[in-house]
Amino acid sequence: MTDTWVEEAAGSLFDVDNLPYGVFSRAGEEPRVGVRVGDLVLDVAPVAAAEMLDVHHVFQEPSLNPLMAEGRQVWGSLRTWLTGLLTDETERDLVEPHLVPVADVTLHLPVEVADYVDFYASLEHATNVGRIFRPDAEALLPNWRHLPVGYHGRAGTVVASGTDVVRPAGQRKAPSEDAPTYGPSQRLDIEAELGFVVGTPSALGSRVAVADFADHVFGLVGLNDWSARDLQAWEYVPLGPFLGKSFATSVSHWVTPLEALAAAWVDLPGQDPTPLPYLADGSPRGLDIAVEVEIGGQVVSRPPYSSMYWSPAQMLAHMTVNGASLRTGDLFASGTISGAEREQRGSLLELSWGGREPLADGRTFLEDGDTVTLRYTAPSASGGRLALGEVTGTVVPAV
Amino acid sequence: MTDTWVEEAAGSLFDVDNLPYGVFSRAGEEPRVGVRVGDLVLDVAPVAAAEMLDVHHVFQEPSLNPLMAEGRQVWGSLRTWLTGLLTDETERDLVEPHLVPVADVTLHLPVEVADYVDFYASLEHATNVGRIFRPDAEALLPNWRHLPVGYHGRAGTVVASGTDVVRPAGQRKAPSEDAPTYGPSQRLDIEAELGFVVGTPSALGSRVAVADFADHVFGLVGLNDWSARDLQAWEYVPLGPFLGKSFATSVSHWVTPLEALAAAWVDLPGQDPTPLPYLADGSPRGLDIAVEVEIGGQVVSRPPYSSMYWSPAQMLAHMTVNGASLRTGDLFASGTISGAEREQRGSLLELSWGGREPLADGRTFLEDGDTVTLRYTAPSASGGRLALGEVTGTVVPAV
Repeated sequence: MTDTWVEEAAGSLFDVDNLPYGVFSRAGEEPRVGVRVGDLVLDVAPVAAAEMLDVHHVFQEPSLNPLMAEGRQVWGSLRTWLTGLLTDETERDLVEPHLVPVADVTLHLPVEVADYVDFYASLEHATNVGRIFRPDAEALLPNWRHLPVGYHGRAGTVVASGTDVVRPAGQRKAPSEDAPTYGPSQRLDIEAELGFVVGTPSALGSRVAVADFADHVFGLVGLNDWSARDLQAWEYVPLGPFLGKSFATSVSHWVTPLEALAAAWVDLPGQDPTPLPYLADGSPRGLDIAVEVEIGGQVVSRPPYSSMYWSPAQMLAHMTVNGASLRTGDLFASGTISGAEREQRGSLLELSWGGREPLADGRTFLEDGDTVTLRYTAPSASGGRLALGEVTGTVVPAV
Repeated sequence: MTDTWVEEAAGSLFDVDNLPYGVFSRAGEEPRVGVRVGDLVLDVAPVAAAEMLDVHHVFQEPSLNPLMAEGRQVWGSLRTWLTGLLTDETERDLVEPHLVPVADVTLHLPVEVADYVDFYASLEHATNVGRIFRPDAEALLPNWRHLPVGYHGRAGTVVASGTDVVRPAGQRKAPSEDAPTYGPSQRLDIEAELGFVVGTPSALGSRVAVADFADHVFGLVGLNDWSARDLQAWEYVPLGPFLGKSFATSVSHWVTPLEALAAAWVDLPGQDPTPLPYLADGSPRGLDIAVEVEIGGQVVSRPPYSSMYWSPAQMLAHMTVNGASLRTGDLFASGTISGAEREQRGSLLELSWGGREPLADGRTFLEDGDTVTLRYTAPSASGGRLALGEVTGTVVPAV
């Protein structure tokens, strides 16, 4: 990789081997597409217009969807073009006036989310939850090792990082109680996840093979699947989580293109039994993304995405095996990322073992005023590391 | 009600006390909003433009969403205006040139669906399914009488009536088998439902009270929640139905405004125990809508929507009690409508009791080539009956 002339970006977590996309605005202006480099945002639209790019209009839109709909070949061409702009010193006079400090702009939800699906792809998470919620039964349900279990979430409440999360109210009933009561959730939790954003759609009645993952998935977001455990535990049989999840799902401002993560692919730990052929993936490949969970200023966990059971490509193939179509803007998430060690668990439910083992600061679940921040880094193409978009949010009291 | 000058509509199921909205196109023209009267479609846009209606632009759009976003007051004004057009003989010269035979147009999906939620609001259906799927346990789960159980479905695969349904493939495992197998669903089913379409959005973090139902809900569609029972039975623990449902959900071309159903409200059978206050609804009110299920040319069932347990207003209040926002185009459905009698069951799962009691024609589940049609009628304001939009679809073989 040639070095960038953007001095403050060189060697940072947002060097030119990263280049995530987002949507930003300046005071009095409409939101449009930006690319992050160092602590700057490149306002792409005027540069693309000046260079008469065929697709320059996609940068003037208030979401990444039109850009993502262009497909894999255009994604690759644009990345090559952007890299050239930021490494070729002769482009500096054209580009530099359009670099804006990220601190001077407002960042928005980057994607107009079509459908949102959440998986449950960590063996350690599924096992922990099984033990906590169903202590008298097998921790792992019979289907779990045969398919990536997932469900649809609420696309309309996917919010951008930084959005306050109002503590949800609803019904909950402890096993010891005779009847449910109504009130604010007393077990508000996080789930540290990664989200995958679909760019290229697929036709109703067709399937997306494991091998076609990179033709459809544009990039990754950090994702916090806020969860009200008391609401969820009471409502979830037999149709799954609903109000325990649907009040908010936070995603990062930045979408990291899949191409930026070429050096991050690793073999997953392994799958036993061998999945059915439509899920076969040679040696299933995951991503070596390190996650950091900070609550109230303290890092409470460091879940490793490399230890997941199901691969992102298997999740996509499963989601479409019944002929369900994909749309530009579909978002699917990994489910909570939990490693084998206690300090690698991606939810407070697991970190506090159902509330019975408080953390070092005495915490079990989230308190009003808590700020949660998820950070993600991965190996970069240049041998260093890059940051994916972080996700933050603060809990505010129930209405 | 004044009689209409549209002679062929007078006394029909699409008389001027009905007036459902849809989206139609003629060869070579863009889809736009139409209103059905008799077997004709009123092309509203040119009439609204000629009369210089403030909101005339909403009729030129390819979905009802812009119209629905205008809110309840505009919905009422437009209905009054349309009724005037079609009953006042002096309007005939203006309007008549814009009435097109429904047989001469193409009808489209009327709504751009935002989020799709499916409930489970029939006591008889939930009891039947519990008995069939979990024969050794209580038929009704402990939460069922305390809250309207629901889950999110796939909005991107909501299709218009008339769309073929490709038999889905996927994993299934009978309890007697050691491991799952892959293949086309062998237990393809229907669910006869009604869908409610949201017009007026609500803010994230706020709630919609039971009493505010008519401020938010624009109208009703017929809905067939196609279900692959073998896929569903294997996948649904613990996160609920996913691929067993996400391959297709069919809705009617016509959206019946809530205002057309003013004469259809009835008391529901009753709720025991009394729900928590946020679900309290005086005497909960349902709709006296008669459903007819036809498969392969034979009427196999007549489920009564009047016998549901949870009311539509309670479903909406529950869906938002955690602060989840509503968007224009949100669709929520009743769940399978089943009455107390065998010939009132709204799914083949129940009609054939899990496949063990074939129907009169020998059928258990759907066969390739089967056409399913759901029809809906209700009392009209004039003392007669009106038809809601019918939903039809034909099963085609797996790819």
